[in-house]
Amino acid sequence: MSPPLDDANPQRPISSILFVMAMQAEALPLVEHLKLDQDDGSLFPAGLPWIRYHGRHEGLDVSVVVPGKCMVFGVDNVGTVPSALITYAAVQALHPDLIINMGTAGGFKGKGAKVADAYIATKAANHDRRIPIPIFDEYGIGENTTISTPNLVQTLQLKEGKLSTGNSLDMTPQDEQIIKSNDATIKDMEGAAVLYVAHLLSTPVILLKVITDIVDGDKPTAEEFLENLSNASLVLLQTSLQMLDFIKGKSLAEL
Amino acid sequence: MSPPLDDANPQRPISSILFVMAMQAEALPLVEHLKLDQDDGSLFPAGLPWIRYHGRHEGLDVSVVVPGKCMVFGVDNVGTVPSALITYAAVQALHPDLIINMGTAGGFKGKGAKVADAYIATKAANHDRRIPIPIFDEYGIGENTTISTPNLVQTLQLKEGKLSTGNSLDMTPQDEQIIKSNDATIKDMEGAAVLYVAHLLSTPVILLKVITDIVDGDKPTAEEFLENLSNASLVLLQTSLQMLDFIKGKSLAEL
Repeated sequence: MSPPLDDANPQRPISSILFVMAMQAEALPLVEHLKLDQDDGSLFPAGLPWIRYHGRHEGLDVSVVVPGKCMVFGVDNVGTVPSALITYAAVQALHPDLIINMGTAGGFKGKGAKVADAYIATKAANHDRRIPIPIFDEYGIGENTTISTPNLVQTLQLKEGKLSTGNSLDMTPQDEQIIKSNDATIKDMEGAAVLYVAHLLSTPVILLKVITDIVDGDKPTAEEFLENLSNASLVLLQTSLQMLDFIKGKSLAEL
Repeated sequence: MSPPLDDANPQRPISSILFVMAMQAEALPLVEHLKLDQDDGSLFPAGLPWIRYHGRHEGLDVSVVVPGKCMVFGVDNVGTVPSALITYAAVQALHPDLIINMGTAGGFKGKGAKVADAYIATKAANHDRRIPIPIFDEYGIGENTTISTPNLVQTLQLKEGKLSTGNSLDMTPQDEQIIKSNDATIKDMEGAAVLYVAHLLSTPVILLKVITDIVDGDKPTAEEFLENLSNASLVLLQTSLQMLDFIKGKSLAEL
């Protein structure tokens, strides 16, 4: 399904943007560059590790939310459930004109992806929700479409490709088969869930993913991911700043 | 981690119960038996398929929520993300004393499970969140503990066991390995996510699961599941009614 662009008034200039990111390492460069302030926490229920950073940038109201550190294990709350929850709560509280879910991802060299490439995902589906009952099988894949951004993609010279989401960093043979059937160039751990929630709440989404590791390459994913995380975070920063520059003053229909 | 029983005042009689269920077929027998009314929908954001049923039963305030039918594919919104979202939204709106997440599940005969057995899950963990980076690996498993209910289990002669949750109805070799390492007797598609959200929001949870299929048996899971769904729904109804009878007038500490 497509988000109801008519309801969102695609002719009006975009005024508020919500960045949803899973890892603090992905978010902090943007937060620091834009000099965003950390909220007092009152936007979300008391006691939650979720964080919102907020400020203005060249006429745009910019929020960055991250689900913070796990209260038990102390690592970033990655994966579909925390990202879905914080997207839901932030959209309910802020009613943004546009969500940008950005983060690192794996890429398939067989589909043209290279480390540090910046991708806009045109569609997102799931590869770890196998429900072999008619119609439930399609629900499990749950492919959704993002908003169309041809001008943004052309101006910033971004790549486009389909995204497949799963809660694991690695890939089993079953995952691989479904990722192929999803025709995916990029693989992440949150995108399809953010898009699902955004569609539930009729909010347009852009999925920006920067490649940290080549899934169909020789190196172990975890090692390659950690090696390239810092560099990919810089590309995320540069691309997100270029995106904000491009978006300011434009409507959804002009993206 | 354990829910903060002290904060929840374990000595006070339980007055409000929130049932979270993934499938309407699991929920409707209880809704009809208790003559619960369907809300006008204003509890949740407009346009969402989520449903709340509500009423009083022998002094208890009883809500049943289901994430409803997928707006694209028309099937029940099963899996971790919809259940996490509706648990979050319902707890924020209703502040229940106790969540009961009940539903059907697979069982392992090697751990003593039989079709139609009713289990209380003592712990829940995930088996489809493989993140092979130190500490992230433990976060991915994400084991959480439910509240202790020794009197309930003994009086109703329920079975106890650990639950492992994943977004697929089937089981890959990798899933099986992690389910074994999670020491699980029962396997479902929502429990660990409901428990995760409940812990975030400091709300006590009981996980009641009735076995529809034997995972380590001979029959294909989907076929066995569909065959036994109706009978398991009856066991869910009977057990949930017995639970309400047992809970009324009691505090959390007496369960």
